[in-house]
Amino acid sequence: MELFVFILELAGTAAFAVSGAMLALKKNMDVFGVCVMGLTTACGGGVIRDVLLGVLPPVMFRAPVYALTAIGVSVVVFLPSVRRALTADSRAYAAIILLADSAGLGIFACAGVAAAVNAGYGDNFFFSVFLGAVTGVGGGVLRDVMAGMPPYIFVKHVYAVAAILGAMLCAALWVPAGRTAAMLSGSALIFLLRLLAAHFRWSLPRAGDGA
Amino acid sequence: MELFVFILELAGTAAFAVSGAMLALKKNMDVFGVCVMGLTTACGGGVIRDVLLGVLPPVMFRAPVYALTAIGVSVVVFLPSVRRALTADSRAYAAIILLADSAGLGIFACAGVAAAVNAGYGDNFFFSVFLGAVTGVGGGVLRDVMAGMPPYIFVKHVYAVAAILGAMLCAALWVPAGRTAAMLSGSALIFLLRLLAAHFRWSLPRAGDGA
Amino acid sequence: MELFVFILELAGTAAFAVSGAMLALKKNMDVFGVCVMGLTTACGGGVIRDVLLGVLPPVMFRAPVYALTAIGVSVVVFLPSVRRALTADSRAYAAIILLADSAGLGIFACAGVAAAVNAGYGDNFFFSVFLGAVTGVGGGVLRDVMAGMPPYIFVKHVYAVAAILGAMLCAALWVPAGRTAAMLSGSALIFLLRLLAAHFRWSLPRAGDGA
Repeated sequence: MELFVFILELAGTAAFAVSGAMLALKKNMDVFGVCVMGLTTACGGGVIRDVLLGVLPPVMFRAPVYALTAIGVSVVVFLPSVRRALTADSRAYAAIILLADSAGLGIFACAGVAAAVNAGYGDNFFFSVFLGAVTGVGGGVLRDVMAGMPPYIFVKHVYAVAAILGAMLCAALWVPAGRTAAMLSGSALIFLLRLLAAHFRWSLPRAGDGA
Repeated sequence: MELFVFILELAGTAAFAVSGAMLALKKNMDVFGVCVMGLTTACGGGVIRDVLLGVLPPVMFRAPVYALTAIGVSVVVFLPSVRRALTADSRAYAAIILLADSAGLGIFACAGVAAAVNAGYGDNFFFSVFLGAVTGVGGGVLRDVMAGMPPYIFVKHVYAVAAILGAMLCAALWVPAGRTAAMLSGSALIFLLRLLAAHFRWSLPRAGDGA
Repeated sequence: MELFVFILELAGTAAFAVSGAMLALKKNMDVFGVCVMGLTTACGGGVIRDVLLGVLPPVMFRAPVYALTAIGVSVVVFLPSVRRALTADSRAYAAIILLADSAGLGIFACAGVAAAVNAGYGDNFFFSVFLGAVTGVGGGVLRDVMAGMPPYIFVKHVYAVAAILGAMLCAALWVPAGRTAAMLSGSALIFLLRLLAAHFRWSLPRAGDGA
């Protein structure tokens, strides 16, 4: 069971590291900047989660495997042959960032719910969902701020709403369906909602709409 | 006594939520953005306070009433009829934001002092005042950063100075005058200083002045 | 031994306060802004360090000497005669900021390693070095963000790399050479690397280089 969560978290770490490192390439950062962007995107949400839970020092410092994975992935993205392949086609480039970011968002939102449950807050639905959403979107917000861009979460589509809905599904299924089914369902829902929202350009009502 | 602090905090939460939600309207955010802005402005200072105190998870996660109040207020602000009324007159709009922000600043600065005293740091005047000031200005700083604006605290008037003076009054009166009198006096001082500073355009000496 | 670390930390606090206060002067901030910038630059890295370590409330709140030093230095920098002298010559001005920032970076990076060791994480090389680097660069990042500038760490030279290398040297020498030698060696290495990097305009490979 623990192994399953661990593998899922490593996959989310790698996916977010790809999205951070590729944005750094686009901003023409040096190799250190690419690694910092990959690391922050991949581990930032988890650090925020652990600070809010009072789990200190955060897990990423006690288990270096996450940070090393993020840095390793970032270095690979920076390799001349890899980065040339990644950036050769701007449509493929955008698609890779979208897929990597969506996978990271889904996995980390449910990892956040799992951390709340493990810390004994499973009966606090509000906190479990909030922690899941913050864990999911935190890394991306830090990535965008560090790249000098307005956080994606505030400008587009139903990004954070997808994280909240998936975290709610995950928290609701936790007891009846078990951890594995809950985390896979929640992650999949977020991944799909995020892709559908990007494809169909879904957006939420604005103050200017028909007001 | 606890009830009094609780009611004051709810009032501050609602006031800050109004200021955050209305700034989000001005920035043409969608309904989710309006709620996030209202929630962050209202609860951000308290989360920073609790992290610095080591009270984890922060109170807003263990007592969802604050977050639900902030979100509820934000949704009401977003309602077409309400927002039309709020934004119809730009002078009235500015006045409402000023009043709501001033009330929130005064209440939260004193709630921060109360939190420091309750955690056993009542004899550390420096920490009590600092925690009060940070609790008071924290939500507004997050609001401005999220809206892509330079934090108000750094550009105008005696905003943070008012919070510090009110927190000092509150901390100094705590033992001799009692909690209720201390918090009401401190909050009122901040509210008045903030309004007077805005009205008379008070500012502090700058490097360029007569140097 | 404790006294040695204390004196080193006070020196780093003063150096960072100078760099923050002088940047505030350049941005034409008022006297309060100058003090906040000096305080945040000097104490920001330590607060981040203590939050990550779970040492709460952070040391700066329990031992006001650091904050008072930072505020005192900032007020001195703001004094008309001092600021005229500091800003009269733009080359001297840049040199003072560079020296103060380099000294602060070196001292705080090693103070971060010391904090990790004191908290019992001396055998976790990864965490000790990371905490050192974050403590060193944290204040400067907050300073740049508050001044509305892109963090220096992301735009120039080998700033953070110097902090990481010096923290590694400090952590590696801790057991064999003792605390004093480890901290002095690490701080000196960072100070020198930072100055050399600025002088020779060292930079790291970018994605655009020969790709």
